[in-house]
Parts: sequence; C-alpha cells; structure tokens
Amino acid sequence: MMLLVDDHGNTYLIKGDAEFHTKYGLLTAAQIKNAKPGDLLTSNTGRTFHVIEPNITDYVQKASRGPQAMTLKDLSIIAGFTGLHSGSRVLEAGTGSGVLSIFLANIVAPAVLSTYDIREDFAEIARKNFAKFGITNIEAKLKDIYSGIDETDLDLVTLDLAEPWLAVPHATKALKIGGYLSSYSPSISQSKKLVDSLGEGYWHETFETLKRDWKMDAVRPHTQMLGHTGFITIARLLSR
Amino acid sequence: MMLLVDDHGNTYLIKGDAEFHTKYGLLTAAQIKNAKPGDLLTSNTGRTFHVIEPNITDYVQKASRGPQAMTLKDLSIIAGFTGLHSGSRVLEAGTGSGVLSIFLANIVAPAVLSTYDIREDFAEIARKNFAKFGITNIEAKLKDIYSGIDETDLDLVTLDLAEPWLAVPHATKALKIGGYLSSYSPSISQSKKLVDSLGEGYWHETFETLKRDWKMDAVRPHTQMLGHTGFITIARLLSR
Amino acid sequence: MMLLVDDHGNTYLIKGDAEFHTKYGLLTAAQIKNAKPGDLLTSNTGRTFHVIEPNITDYVQKASRGPQAMTLKDLSIIAGFTGLHSGSRVLEAGTGSGVLSIFLANIVAPAVLSTYDIREDFAEIARKNFAKFGITNIEAKLKDIYSGIDETDLDLVTLDLAEPWLAVPHATKALKIGGYLSSYSPSISQSKKLVDSLGEGYWHETFETLKRDWKMDAVRPHTQMLGHTGFITIARLLSR
Amino acid sequence: MMLLVDDHGNTYLIKGDAEFHTKYGLLTAAQIKNAKPGDLLTSNTGRTFHVIEPNITDYVQKASRGPQAMTLKDLSIIAGFTGLHSGSRVLEAGTGSGVLSIFLANIVAPAVLSTYDIREDFAEIARKNFAKFGITNIEAKLKDIYSGIDETDLDLVTLDLAEPWLAVPHATKALKIGGYLSSYSPSISQSKKLVDSLGEGYWHETFETLKRDWKMDAVRPHTQMLGHTGFITIARLLSR
Repeated sequence: MMLLVDDHGNTYLIKGDAEFHTKYGLLTAAQIKNAKPGDLLTSNTGRTFHVIEPNITDYVQKASRGPQAMTLKDLSIIAGFTGLHSGSRVLEAGTGSGVLSIFLANIVAPAVLSTYDIREDFAEIARKNFAKFGITNIEAKLKDIYSGIDETDLDLVTLDLAEPWLAVPHATKALKIGGYLSSYSPSISQSKKLVDSLGEGYWHETFETLKRDWKMDAVRPHTQMLGHTGFITIARLLSR
Repeated sequence: MMLLVDDHGNTYLIKGDAEFHTKYGLLTAAQIKNAKPGDLLTSNTGRTFHVIEPNITDYVQKASRGPQAMTLKDLSIIAGFTGLHSGSRVLEAGTGSGVLSIFLANIVAPAVLSTYDIREDFAEIARKNFAKFGITNIEAKLKDIYSGIDETDLDLVTLDLAEPWLAVPHATKALKIGGYLSSYSPSISQSKKLVDSLGEGYWHETFETLKRDWKMDAVRPHTQMLGHTGFITIARLLSR
Repeated sequence: MMLLVDDHGNTYLIKGDAEFHTKYGLLTAAQIKNAKPGDLLTSNTGRTFHVIEPNITDYVQKASRGPQAMTLKDLSIIAGFTGLHSGSRVLEAGTGSGVLSIFLANIVAPAVLSTYDIREDFAEIARKNFAKFGITNIEAKLKDIYSGIDETDLDLVTLDLAEPWLAVPHATKALKIGGYLSSYSPSISQSKKLVDSLGEGYWHETFETLKRDWKMDAVRPHTQMLGHTGFITIARLLSR
Repeated sequence: MMLLVDDHGNTYLIKGDAEFHTKYGLLTAAQIKNAKPGDLLTSNTGRTFHVIEPNITDYVQKASRGPQAMTLKDLSIIAGFTGLHSGSRVLEAGTGSGVLSIFLANIVAPAVLSTYDIREDFAEIARKNFAKFGITNIEAKLKDIYSGIDETDLDLVTLDLAEPWLAVPHATKALKIGGYLSSYSPSISQSKKLVDSLGEGYWHETFETLKRDWKMDAVRPHTQMLGHTGFITIARLLSR
C-alpha cells in the first residue's frame, strides 16, 4: 500500500496497481506500479502527487466510519492515559466501525486486541476495515459485553457504549489490579451514571479535550472548530 | 516496584523494601516486603493504601521535572498523531527531564529512542529518571541538534526547543519520507517561525489542546483549569 | 470617590480624605484630599499611584462577594444578550452580594432594578455594597421568588438560584411578551431541569463562556485559567 | 416594527403592513396589520408564528454585515468590560457594517455615539442599517482615525481596525483619564503590536472569549462551534 498526497493535503490510499482517477486527473497503471516513497507523480492534467508510505493515522482517517466515531485526539488520549504499549492486553466494546480497534491494535501488537459488538452490520464494516489495512491482530466477536467478558487479566477495558455502567461489574472481574477502564460518551449524563456505578474500588477522572486548530498564515485560530466529541472517563481498578 | 494509592488518590512509588513514611503514617518494612497488587495496607495511624503495579503514566507523573514540562495530554497527542508503535525509530531534542523520552520509549520498545540535549544538568536529571524507572531503551546524548543528527531513516523527530526552526534542515535529512516532525512550543510566535521554515516538502498542522476536568459529583467543570501548555506542530515529510 | 492604580495594576478605591496605607507605603491626608484624575501620587516609600475616576467595573471587582459570584464576563453576557439599556425593567433573584444588581442598575438607570433574596445576611452585604458605591436605583426586597413576583411588564427576569425552575411560572406572568428570562447555574444538571421546565412558550439557548487571558510579552495564553463559572440559559417569552 | 418567531426559532423582522412570504407559507396584509405582541399567526400552509417586539439583539442579528463582523458575545464583552451606560461618550472606528455602533448606541442613548470609517461602501451599509432600525443617536463620519480624533473627554474609544496601533496616539489625547481603549483583532499578531504600542500610560489586558453552546436534550455541547472571532484588548488610560 502507498499513500498519495496532493497539493491541498488530500490523501489517497492506493492498493494494487490499477490506474487511479482523482478529480485532479488520472495516474496511469504504470505510474502507480513503479511509484515508491519520495516520488512525485504528475497526472494527465498536470497536477502533482507525493508518494509516501501510509501510517496508522492514515488508516484511521480512511476507515469507513459512523457519524459519531472518535477523532484522532480521543484515540490518542485513551492510549496515552492508560499507558498502552506492545503486549498490553486490551478488550474493547463496542467495535463500531473499528477505528479505535485499529489504532490500539497498532500499539499493542503483536498482542491480539479483542473487540465486542452486538450489531452484525457494524461488525461487518469493522472487519472490512481491518482487512483493507491488513491488520491481523484483532479478534472481533459478535458478543454483548453487558452479559460478560471472556478475557481475563486485562490491562485495559475500553468502552464506547450507550450504557457503559452495565459493563462495569464485568470489567471489574476481567481487569488486572491496576488496570484501566476507559469510557467515551457524548453526553455528560452518561458519564455521570458511569461514574456513580464505579464504587470504591476505582480511582477515576472524567474530562473532555478540545483541539483548536490554528491558521498560521494569519496567526489566529480557525473560525470553525469541532466543539465536542465526547467526555472521557479514565478509571483504574485498585481492588475488587 | 509497586505503587501505593491512598484514599485521596495520591500515589507513592515504592522501590526496595524499606519501611515507608507518609503524612498518613508509617508502613513497616514487613508490610512493604510482603505487599502484592490488590492488597490493602493499613498504616500505624489507621489509614489504608491500595497496592497496584505501576504503569508508565505513573512514571511520567513521578519523574523529576522542570516547570514547563509537557503534560500527559501532550505526550499522548504527540505519540498518537504520529502513529508510534513498537519498533518506531524516534529522535527527541531536547531531553529536558526526560518525561517525553520515557513515555515514547515505552511505546517504541524494544527499539531504542535517541534523545539529545546540550545541557549537562538536564541530561543528569533525565538519566536519573531513566534509571529510577528501569527504562533501558533510551540513548541519551549530550549533543546539539542544531549542528546535525546522527540517526537516519527516522519515523519521528520530536522537538521541545527554543528555536525549533534551526533543527528543521537536519530533520529533513534524518527523517524517512512520510516520517513526522513534531514540535512543542509555549509561544505561538515560535510556532509561526517554525511553520515558516518548513517549506514545500512538508505537510503540517498547528494546534493546541485543552483538557477540561469535570467535578462529577456536581456535574460541572472544575473552576481551576490548566489554560495552556504548548502549541503543537505536526509536520510530515513528503519530499526532500 | 477616586481610584488609585499602582504599578502592578492593583486598584484601591478611596472614599473621604483620610491618609491611606498600602503595602507600598503611606499616602498622606493632604495628598488624598488634593488628588484629581491624572495625578501621580508618590508614597513615603517612593512608590507611585495613578489617580483615576472609578467605573462600575471597579465597583464590581471591589464589592464584597461570596465564593461563587459571577465574573465580569458573565455580567456582560447577561446584559448584552438581553439587550438592556436605560429604562429597561429588570427583576433579579437572588441578590447574593449584589454584584449583578450593581452592574445591571448602572445600565438601566434611571429605572429602578428590583432584586429579591430570602437570606437576611446576603441582603445585608448587598445593601452595604450598594451604599458603598452610592448606587440608589436598586430596590432590594427580602422575598422568596418561588412564591411570586410583584413586578409586571418586565424586560428581564434574571436568576441565580439553586432551583431556578421553581421561579419559571412566576416569571412567565411577570415578563412582557418578548421579554427575557436568564439563569446562571454552576451545574449543567440545574440548567437541564430549568430548560425542561420552560415549555412551548419560550425560545431558549444554553451555553457557557470561557475567557482566556493572554500573556502578551510571551505571546501565549496564561497557564492558569478560570475553567468554569456557570452555565447561562437565555430564554425569551413568546407567548403565555 | 415587530418580530415573528417560527417553530424553529427563526426570526423575521417586519416593517410596514404588506403581506409576508416565508418558506413556511404566506401571512396576509390583514394578519400583519392587526398583529400585536403575544399573537400567534397561522400561515396559509398551517405553520404558526409568534409575534413579539424586537430587541436590539434582533437588530444586531438582522443587520447586513460583512464576513468578520463581531458576534453578540464580543459586543457584550466590550460594553461590559468598559462599564458603558446611558450618557457614556464613545468613539468607534471602523464602522464596518455598523453592528457594534447599533449595539453600543442602544446603551449610551440619549448620548450620540461617533463612528469613523474611511470606506464609503461600508459607511453606506451602516447608514442603511441605522435607518432600518430607526437608530438616530449615531453620528457616522467618513474619516480616517489614523489622522486624528475630533471628539474629546471620551469614556471609550473602540477599535476594529487592521492597524489599531496607529490610532493609539490620537486615542490617548481624546480619552478622559480613566477612560477605556478597546480593540478587536482576528490575529494575535495585531494584538501584540497594539499592546507594544500602548506604553506606560495604559493598564491593559488581552484575552479571547469562547461561547460553547449546549444541546440540552442530549446534555452535551454542540459538535460545531465558532472556534474564534477575535482577540480583545481592553486598555485603560492612567496618565497621558
């Protein structure tokens, strides 16, 4: 796979070596086939495309996704605030379009990340996304986390669910002592219910993060801003 | 090593098995020696301490650090926006107290992270921090990045410098195509100069992130907030 | 009355012509007596003080106040979003320390602003504040707004109460059609209950505002920030 | 004049008594002519419209305006942080579309607000806005503030200019001691130059404000947010 980047910063993920059409013109099969990182390809309309190797951050942005999927900021915060690294044992629910699965699997590899969802349609989108990017260390299960967790001795249980508090008793059993429970909720009412369900055995904090992009030629923030994604709760199991 | 957590969420990192004094009383050498994750220790004044395994996030918070050191939010964003994982090749400058080094080394292990600083006093603090937490995959050099970079084919060059633009020509040579340059600056004037120095070969964005903590018993944000840490520029090398 | 401003931007409100002691030294009764706007007074320790006329914004900052009193940002937003001007008919509850009363009375004068509180101790603090600044167009009543509103045909009913929804039925009667109901609440749970109580007869919006101070010598935001004051609901009566 | 408010909170300012067309149907001339505040009008398609008296906040939103015009939040902050009230003496430059002029004139009436602009096209838009809303206490001059200020003894000089620092020497002469200079700039670089030009005679602060709207049915902030309008500097003349 390779990534094309045009003059506007738009990116195009290329698999195989078929000719490639963009709104800025055509790149021939021969151009695609011979391209390697650092090359500059010119389309039949004279527009140029940089060739680079794709990164996990490109996959995250290219994944088919639902309307409320987490942004890179939230993915980064969840991985960073729970100290993930190669070998960390992670369970995720629900899978959704698999964006968080992909991001975390890249960090914990070669460990296999487990992810649950109860909706067959989401599981299907996620599986396609995993295949598209060649990510193999994810085990996606069609399973309801509210009924229990198969895995044990986990470093992280990460939730993106409508009723995360229903997963707490199961997480408490599945986590290792000192392990993390993280939950992402659009509404603060959901976060409140989750926090109220945690009990004495967890230390926890709830916060939101804002990413404010700057327009550097004018040295000012951009006018339009993503004002909200979700509230994040990070809880740590101290005792069962 | 183990981590003690008291009722207020304060944490204490314990090495060895000497008796341990806190403002909430004394834990005996025998208590410390026999403690294992999940235990609840009671001090001679009747206060209780949970025992858990420490995580990299604890090390980051326990590291001796200067006044302007990055927070966990910034560490997470830099690692996440550049897609780091086990094996990523990273060069950092300046080392400072080594907080970012520790955080990133945990993710890229077993790869060895290189870090440069020109100040012997900072290098000394950093080395002590690395030793304290048993982190061995960091090579700390007393070296000025403004004069050049030894490493090549890097996935990330990450800067926390007063004049980051002076490192750009060297980063351009040391990065692999598609690799990332990140820079953290307290002042937007520094970010502006950096961005102006990047030229055509880089795609880039500059932003700030805000973490807003909520007081969940009252369902409102905390009154006091960290209003600013630094501006982050993420640049990606498209061509040299 | 006059205002002294020292080199650090600290302000001192002066009434009468007694000698004046600051931590930067003494100003004599003669100095105070003869001072007029534009003068520069020098204390016995050589520190200088600018003399200017005080403004309502000084009174707001100098008023004795409780821990959760609104800041100038919130006062400004309430006055501005409801279009107050000379002659506007305003009822406030609760009075608290009278900071909002003072601010709004300055705008609506010569109209008399009414303000209710049920706590005698707050009413006393407020009355002292009004007297201290010579503000006479405020009628402060020891009265429970949850039991009713005496005034009619109001342009604004502004609430700073623990249970603002209990005042809504009375506000609906007391407001003129097109008039505003505003409410300030630390917790979003209170705002939610208020909004749910408004019914079909009101258009409304709920928001929070953040003031981010910049340290201009370094061209960066200040590290410490007031992360939250209160959520503001602005509602407008369309029909009863 | 009267204001119609539909079920979605859209508002329509009505002058005269001609029939009125909206995308939700037609209101007849007879309906418009007989309407009074509190009425509910039904269009020929069965949609309903509340009738209320317009407020200055409606005029501000209905004024023809340029792309970078201040929002109600900024207008409120400027008026509130400078303590404006009936009788305050205010000079504004540049007029732009006259939105700030209208807002401030409403507060200082019956005092006449002066406003300068050098562009005839803006002055024309502003004059039309003033006439449309029947605001008579504004004197709009086609004049360059960088060459001087006619007015004296001012309470406020408020600037929305590309190079506000060029107006500072004139403001210093025109303001009364203790009076305010305010300036609104999209770029922090402009604010920095302004602040550097103020000298010892002014106390000053520079800040930005953010308004974050909440979607109360879901108890969460809105996804889309206005991330930036302008940086505001509030300066106070201590001595000339």
